[in-house]
Amino acid sequence: MGKGFAVWFTGLSSAGKTTISRLVEADLRARGLPVEVLDGDVVRQNLSQGLGFTRADRDANIRRIAFVSKLLTRNCVVTLVAAISPYREARELARKEIGSFVEVYVKCPLETCIARDVKGLYKKAIQESIPNFTGISDPYEEPLGPEIVLHTDKETPEESAAKVLRRLGELGYVSR
Amino acid sequence: MGKGFAVWFTGLSSAGKTTISRLVEADLRARGLPVEVLDGDVVRQNLSQGLGFTRADRDANIRRIAFVSKLLTRNCVVTLVAAISPYREARELARKEIGSFVEVYVKCPLETCIARDVKGLYKKAIQESIPNFTGISDPYEEPLGPEIVLHTDKETPEESAAKVLRRLGELGYVSR
Repeated sequence: MGKGFAVWFTGLSSAGKTTISRLVEADLRARGLPVEVLDGDVVRQNLSQGLGFTRADRDANIRRIAFVSKLLTRNCVVTLVAAISPYREARELARKEIGSFVEVYVKCPLETCIARDVKGLYKKAIQESIPNFTGISDPYEEPLGPEIVLHTDKETPEESAAKVLRRLGELGYVSR
Repeated sequence: MGKGFAVWFTGLSSAGKTTISRLVEADLRARGLPVEVLDGDVVRQNLSQGLGFTRADRDANIRRIAFVSKLLTRNCVVTLVAAISPYREARELARKEIGSFVEVYVKCPLETCIARDVKGLYKKAIQESIPNFTGISDPYEEPLGPEIVLHTDKETPEESAAKVLRRLGELGYVSR
Protein backbone atom coordinates (compact mmCIF):
# COMPACT_ATOMS: atom_id res chain seq x y z
CA MET A 1 0.00 0.00 0.00
CA GLY A 2 1.39 3.40 -1.01
CA LYS A 3 1.53 6.57 1.00
CA GLY A 4 -1.47 8.86 1.05
CA PHE A 5 -1.17 12.49 0.08
CA ALA A 6 -3.41 15.41 -0.76
CA VAL A 7 -3.27 17.49 -3.92
CA TRP A 8 -5.03 20.76 -3.21
CA PHE A 9 -6.27 22.67 -6.27
CA THR A 10 -6.98 26.30 -5.43
CA GLY A 11 -8.05 29.10 -7.76
CA LEU A 12 -10.93 31.19 -9.03
CA SER A 13 -14.26 29.77 -10.13
CA SER A 14 -13.99 28.54 -13.77
CA ALA A 15 -10.17 28.40 -13.55
CA GLY A 16 -10.26 24.65 -14.30
CA LYS A 17 -9.86 23.00 -10.87
CA THR A 18 -12.49 20.31 -11.31
CA THR A 19 -11.57 19.47 -14.91
CA ILE A 20 -7.88 19.07 -14.12
CA SER A 21 -8.49 17.15 -10.89
CA ARG A 22 -10.62 14.63 -12.83
CA LEU A 23 -7.84 14.12 -15.38
CA VAL A 24 -5.29 13.60 -12.61
CA GLU A 25 -7.74 11.23 -10.89
CA ALA A 26 -8.03 9.09 -14.03
CA ASP A 27 -4.24 8.83 -14.36
CA LEU A 28 -3.71 7.91 -10.70
CA ARG A 29 -6.50 5.31 -10.83
CA ALA A 30 -4.90 3.81 -13.92
CA ARG A 31 -1.76 3.38 -11.79
CA GLY A 32 -3.85 1.47 -9.27
CA LEU A 33 -3.81 4.11 -6.56
CA PRO A 34 -6.86 4.63 -4.34
CA VAL A 35 -8.16 8.13 -5.05
CA GLU A 36 -11.00 10.34 -3.81
CA VAL A 37 -11.89 13.71 -5.30
CA LEU A 38 -13.29 16.16 -2.79
CA ASP A 39 -14.91 18.78 -4.96
CA GLY A 40 -15.93 22.01 -3.25
CA ASP A 41 -19.48 21.98 -4.58
CA VAL A 42 -20.10 18.32 -3.77
CA VAL A 43 -18.59 18.61 -0.31
CA ARG A 44 -20.77 21.60 0.46
CA GLN A 45 -23.86 19.49 -0.22
CA ASN A 46 -22.66 16.67 1.96
CA LEU A 47 -20.83 18.37 4.82
CA SER A 48 -21.69 22.02 4.83
CA GLN A 49 -25.34 22.59 4.08
CA GLY A 50 -26.36 25.80 5.75
CA LEU A 51 -22.94 27.38 5.43
CA GLY A 52 -22.68 30.46 3.23
CA PHE A 53 -19.77 32.31 1.68
CA THR A 54 -18.62 34.71 4.36
CA ARG A 55 -15.02 34.30 5.36
CA ALA A 56 -16.03 32.45 8.56
CA ASP A 57 -18.26 30.04 6.63
CA ARG A 58 -15.68 29.48 3.90
CA ASP A 59 -13.05 28.78 6.55
CA ALA A 60 -15.36 26.30 8.31
CA ASN A 61 -15.99 24.54 5.00
CA ILE A 62 -12.26 24.27 4.29
CA ARG A 63 -11.59 22.94 7.81
CA ARG A 64 -14.15 20.17 7.19
CA ILE A 65 -12.60 19.26 3.86
CA ALA A 66 -9.18 19.20 5.53
CA PHE A 67 -10.51 16.94 8.31
CA VAL A 68 -11.88 14.42 5.81
CA SER A 69 -8.77 14.65 3.66
CA LYS A 70 -6.62 13.95 6.72
CA LEU A 71 -8.61 10.81 7.57
CA LEU A 72 -8.25 9.53 4.02
CA THR A 73 -4.62 10.54 3.60
CA ARG A 74 -3.48 8.77 6.75
CA ASN A 75 -5.18 5.64 5.43
CA CYS A 76 -3.09 5.67 2.26
CA VAL A 77 -5.72 7.26 0.02
CA VAL A 78 -4.80 10.05 -2.40
CA THR A 79 -7.26 12.93 -2.06
CA LEU A 80 -7.65 15.52 -4.77
CA VAL A 81 -9.31 18.62 -3.39
CA ALA A 82 -10.83 21.06 -5.85
CA ALA A 83 -12.00 24.11 -3.92
CA ILE A 84 -11.64 27.86 -4.49
CA SER A 85 -10.22 28.14 -0.94
CA PRO A 86 -9.44 31.83 -1.37
CA TYR A 87 -7.80 32.42 2.00
CA ARG A 88 -4.13 31.70 2.51
CA GLU A 89 -4.50 31.05 6.22
CA ALA A 90 -7.15 28.35 5.72
CA ARG A 91 -4.96 26.62 3.12
CA GLU A 92 -1.97 26.76 5.45
CA LEU A 93 -4.06 25.19 8.22
CA ALA A 94 -5.07 22.44 5.81
CA ARG A 95 -1.40 21.87 4.95
CA LYS A 96 -0.48 21.52 8.63
CA GLU A 97 -3.46 19.28 9.38
CA ILE A 98 -2.90 16.92 6.46
CA GLY A 99 0.91 16.80 6.34
CA SER A 100 1.55 15.30 2.89
CA PHE A 101 0.20 18.26 0.99
CA VAL A 102 0.78 19.49 -2.54
CA GLU A 103 -0.68 22.91 -3.28
CA VAL A 104 -1.61 23.51 -6.91
CA TYR A 105 -2.39 27.07 -7.87
CA VAL A 106 -4.77 26.87 -10.82
CA LYS A 107 -3.96 30.31 -12.14
CA CYS A 108 -6.15 32.01 -14.71
CA PRO A 109 -6.82 35.72 -15.29
CA LEU A 110 -10.14 36.88 -13.89
CA GLU A 111 -11.27 38.11 -17.33
CA THR A 112 -10.75 34.63 -18.79
CA CYS A 113 -12.71 33.05 -15.93
CA ILE A 114 -15.51 35.56 -16.48
CA ALA A 115 -15.52 34.79 -20.21
CA ARG A 116 -15.71 31.02 -19.49
CA ASP A 117 -18.25 31.36 -16.65
CA VAL A 118 -18.86 27.59 -16.66
CA LYS A 119 -21.69 27.76 -14.11
CA GLY A 120 -23.06 31.18 -15.05
CA LEU A 121 -22.10 32.46 -11.62
CA TYR A 122 -20.02 35.47 -12.66
CA LYS A 123 -22.86 36.86 -14.73
CA LYS A 124 -25.18 36.55 -11.77
CA ALA A 125 -22.62 37.95 -9.34
CA ILE A 126 -21.99 41.02 -11.50
CA GLN A 127 -25.60 41.67 -12.54
CA GLU A 128 -27.13 41.09 -9.14
CA SER A 129 -24.21 42.43 -7.09
CA ILE A 130 -23.92 39.18 -5.12
CA PRO A 131 -21.76 39.68 -2.04
CA ASN A 132 -18.88 37.38 -1.09
CA PHE A 133 -18.16 36.28 -4.64
CA THR A 134 -14.46 35.50 -5.00
CA GLY A 135 -12.74 37.73 -7.54
CA ILE A 136 -15.69 40.11 -7.79
CA SER A 137 -16.78 41.16 -4.32
CA ASP A 138 -14.41 39.04 -2.24
CA PRO A 139 -10.63 38.64 -2.34
CA TYR A 140 -8.61 35.73 -3.68
CA GLU A 141 -5.28 35.44 -1.90
CA GLU A 142 -2.69 33.94 -4.26
CA PRO A 143 -0.52 31.14 -2.85
CA LEU A 144 2.96 32.36 -1.92
CA GLY A 145 4.80 29.05 -2.24
CA PRO A 146 2.64 26.53 -4.07
CA GLU A 147 4.31 23.31 -5.21
CA ILE A 148 2.77 23.76 -8.66
CA VAL A 149 1.43 26.69 -10.68
CA LEU A 150 -0.78 25.99 -13.67
CA HIS A 151 -1.59 28.63 -16.29
CA THR A 152 -4.90 27.44 -17.60
CA ASP A 153 -5.30 30.34 -20.03
CA LYS A 154 -2.22 29.08 -21.91
CA GLU A 155 -2.26 25.32 -21.28
CA THR A 156 -4.84 22.70 -22.23
CA PRO A 157 -6.34 20.75 -19.31
CA GLU A 158 -4.32 17.75 -20.49
CA GLU A 159 -1.09 19.76 -20.39
CA SER A 160 -1.93 21.03 -16.90
CA ALA A 161 -2.70 17.52 -15.65
CA ALA A 162 0.56 16.22 -17.11
CA LYS A 163 2.41 19.01 -15.28
CA VAL A 164 0.83 17.98 -11.99
CA LEU A 165 1.74 14.32 -12.50
CA ARG A 166 5.32 15.18 -13.48
CA ARG A 167 5.72 17.28 -10.34
CA LEU A 168 4.19 14.53 -8.16
CA GLY A 169 6.89 12.26 -9.59
CA GLU A 170 9.62 14.79 -8.79
CA LEU A 171 8.30 15.12 -5.25
CA GLY A 172 8.37 11.35 -4.84
CA TYR A 173 4.64 10.89 -4.36
CA VAL A 174 4.24 8.76 -7.49
CA SER A 175 6.73 6.76 -9.51
CA ARG A 176 8.03 8.65 -12.54
CA MET B 1 -5.95 -5.08 1.39
CA GLY B 2 -9.15 -6.20 3.11
CA LYS B 3 -12.66 -5.02 2.59
CA GLY B 4 -13.85 -1.91 4.39
CA PHE B 5 -16.93 -1.98 6.58
CA ALA B 6 -18.64 0.19 9.16
CA VAL B 7 -19.58 -0.85 12.68
CA TRP B 8 -22.23 1.54 13.90
CA PHE B 9 -22.65 1.75 17.67
CA THR B 10 -25.99 3.31 18.62
CA GLY B 11 -27.49 3.81 22.08
CA LEU B 12 -28.12 6.23 24.90
CA SER B 13 -25.51 8.58 26.31
CA SER B 14 -23.36 6.69 28.87
CA ALA B 15 -24.42 3.31 27.46
CA GLY B 16 -20.78 2.50 26.64
CA LYS B 17 -20.48 3.21 22.91
CA THR B 18 -17.11 4.98 23.03
CA THR B 19 -15.52 2.58 25.52
CA ILE B 20 -16.49 -0.50 23.54
CA SER B 21 -15.58 1.02 20.18
CA ARG B 22 -12.07 1.77 21.52
CA LEU B 23 -11.65 -1.85 22.64
CA VAL B 24 -12.79 -3.12 19.26
CA GLU B 25 -10.45 -0.61 17.59
CA ALA B 26 -7.46 -1.95 19.55
CA ASP B 27 -8.26 -5.53 18.55
CA LEU B 28 -8.71 -4.71 14.86
CA ARG B 29 -5.49 -2.67 14.81
CA ALA B 30 -3.66 -5.59 16.38
CA ARG B 31 -4.85 -7.65 13.41
CA GLY B 32 -3.28 -5.05 11.11
CA LEU B 33 -6.52 -3.59 9.81
CA PRO B 34 -6.77 0.13 9.04
CA VAL B 35 -9.33 1.58 11.45
CA GLU B 36 -10.86 4.99 12.14
CA VAL B 37 -13.17 5.76 15.03
CA LEU B 38 -15.74 8.42 14.27
CA ASP B 39 -16.96 9.44 17.69
CA GLY B 40 -20.10 11.56 17.79
CA ASP B 41 -18.61 14.24 20.04
CA VAL B 42 -15.36 14.52 18.08
CA VAL B 43 -17.15 14.58 14.74
CA ARG B 44 -19.44 17.34 15.95
CA GLN B 45 -16.42 19.52 16.64
CA ASN B 46 -14.89 18.86 13.25
CA LEU B 47 -17.85 18.61 10.90
CA SER B 48 -20.90 19.98 12.61
CA GLN B 49 -20.09 23.07 14.61
CA GLY B 50 -23.21 25.18 14.75
CA LEU B 51 -25.56 22.21 14.60
CA GLY B 52 -27.75 21.62 17.64
CA PHE B 53 -29.81 18.67 18.83
CA THR B 54 -33.14 19.08 17.10
CA ARG B 55 -34.15 16.16 14.95
CA ALA B 56 -33.17 18.04 11.78
CA ASP B 57 -29.73 18.90 13.17
CA ARG B 58 -29.15 15.39 14.51
CA ASP B 59 -30.11 13.95 11.13
CA ALA B 60 -27.73 16.33 9.35
CA ASN B 61 -24.92 15.31 11.71
CA ILE B 62 -25.57 11.62 11.05
CA ARG B 63 -25.64 12.19 7.29
CA ARG B 64 -22.20 13.81 7.52
CA ILE B 65 -20.81 10.94 9.55
CA ALA B 66 -22.28 8.51 7.02
CA PHE B 67 -20.69 10.45 4.13
CA VAL B 68 -17.24 10.29 5.72
CA SER B 69 -17.72 6.67 6.72
CA LYS B 70 -18.67 5.82 3.13
CA LEU B 71 -15.50 7.46 1.76
CA LEU B 72 -13.35 5.51 4.21
CA THR B 73 -15.22 2.22 3.84
CA ARG B 74 -14.93 2.15 0.07
CA ASN B 75 -11.19 2.66 0.48
CA CYS B 76 -10.86 -0.47 2.59
CA VAL B 77 -10.82 1.26 5.97
CA VAL B 78 -12.87 -0.08 8.88
CA THR B 79 -14.85 2.74 10.49
CA LEU B 80 -16.24 2.43 13.97
CA VAL B 81 -18.97 4.99 14.53
CA ALA B 82 -19.98 5.78 18.10
CA ALA B 83 -22.97 8.10 18.01
CA ILE B 84 -26.29 8.15 19.88
CA SER B 85 -28.06 8.33 16.47
CA PRO B 86 -31.50 8.04 18.07
CA TYR B 87 -33.56 8.00 14.89
CA ARG B 88 -34.14 4.76 13.02
CA GLU B 89 -34.60 6.48 9.67
CA ALA B 90 -31.22 8.23 9.86
CA ARG B 91 -29.51 4.93 10.73
CA GLU B 92 -31.24 3.19 7.84
CA LEU B 93 -30.06 5.93 5.48
CA ALA B 94 -26.52 5.44 6.79
CA ARG B 95 -26.83 1.69 6.17
CA LYS B 96 -27.92 2.27 2.57
CA GLU B 97 -25.24 4.90 1.96
CA ILE B 98 -22.38 2.84 3.36
CA GLY B 99 -23.35 -0.64 2.24
CA SER B 100 -21.15 -2.84 4.41
CA PHE B 101 -22.83 -1.92 7.66
CA VAL B 102 -23.02 -3.65 11.02
CA GLU B 103 -25.44 -2.08 13.47
CA VAL B 104 -24.60 -2.59 17.13
CA TYR B 105 -27.29 -1.69 19.61
CA VAL B 106 -25.48 -0.74 22.82
CA LYS B 107 -28.43 -1.45 25.07
CA CYS B 108 -28.53 -0.22 28.63
CA PRO B 109 -31.50 0.76 30.82
CA LEU B 110 -31.99 4.51 31.11
CA GLU B 111 -31.71 4.35 34.93
CA THR B 112 -28.28 2.74 34.64
CA CYS B 113 -27.14 5.39 32.16
CA ILE B 114 -28.40 8.13 34.49
CA ALA B 115 -26.54 6.51 37.40
CA ARG B 116 -23.32 6.38 35.35
CA ASP B 117 -23.73 9.84 33.81
CA VAL B 118 -20.15 9.78 32.50
CA LYS B 119 -20.24 13.38 31.23
CA GLY B 120 -22.64 14.80 33.85
CA LEU B 121 -25.12 15.50 31.08
CA TYR B 122 -28.15 13.68 32.53
CA LYS B 123 -27.92 15.66 35.76
CA LYS B 124 -27.88 18.88 33.79
CA ALA B 125 -30.65 17.75 31.46
CA ILE B 126 -32.94 16.82 34.35
CA GLN B 127 -32.15 19.78 36.62
CA GLU B 128 -32.23 22.41 33.91
CA SER B 129 -34.94 20.79 31.78
CA ILE B 130 -32.71 20.80 28.70
CA PRO B 131 -34.75 20.15 25.57
CA ASN B 132 -33.81 17.56 22.95
CA PHE B 133 -31.93 15.33 25.36
CA THR B 134 -32.20 11.72 24.22
CA GLY B 135 -33.96 9.51 26.76
CA ILE B 136 -35.15 12.48 28.83
CA SER B 137 -36.84 15.02 26.59
CA ASP B 138 -36.27 13.34 23.22
CA PRO B 139 -37.01 9.82 21.98
CA TYR B 140 -34.57 6.99 21.36
CA GLU B 141 -35.82 4.64 18.68
CA GLU B 142 -34.51 1.13 19.32
CA PRO B 143 -33.06 -0.72 16.32
CA LEU B 144 -35.49 -3.31 14.93
CA GLY B 145 -32.97 -5.61 13.31
CA PRO B 146 -29.46 -4.81 14.55
CA GLU B 147 -26.71 -7.28 13.74
CA ILE B 148 -25.59 -7.19 17.36
CA VAL B 149 -27.21 -6.31 20.70
CA LEU B 150 -25.00 -5.62 23.69
CA HIS B 151 -26.33 -5.51 27.24
CA THR B 152 -23.87 -3.22 28.94
CA ASP B 153 -25.64 -3.36 32.31
CA LYS B 154 -24.83 -7.09 32.48
CA GLU B 155 -21.61 -7.41 30.46
CA THR B 156 -18.19 -5.88 31.04
CA PRO B 157 -16.87 -3.68 28.20
CA GLU B 158 -14.40 -6.47 27.40
CA GLU B 159 -17.21 -9.02 27.12
CA SER B 160 -19.19 -6.67 24.87
CA ALA B 161 -16.18 -6.04 22.63
CA ALA B 162 -15.53 -9.78 22.37
CA LYS B 163 -19.15 -10.27 21.34
CA VAL B 164 -18.76 -7.69 18.57
CA LEU B 165 -15.58 -9.31 17.27
CA ARG B 166 -17.12 -12.80 17.35
CA ARG B 167 -20.09 -11.57 15.34
CA LEU B 168 -17.84 -9.76 12.84
CA GLY B 169 -16.15 -13.12 12.34
CA GLU B 170 -19.50 -14.88 11.80
CA LEU B 171 -20.49 -12.21 9.28
CA GLY B 172 -17.22 -12.74 7.41
CA TYR B 173 -15.84 -9.24 7.99
CA VAL B 174 -12.83 -10.48 9.97
CA SER B 175 -11.13 -13.85 10.16
CA ARG B 176 -12.31 -15.93 13.11
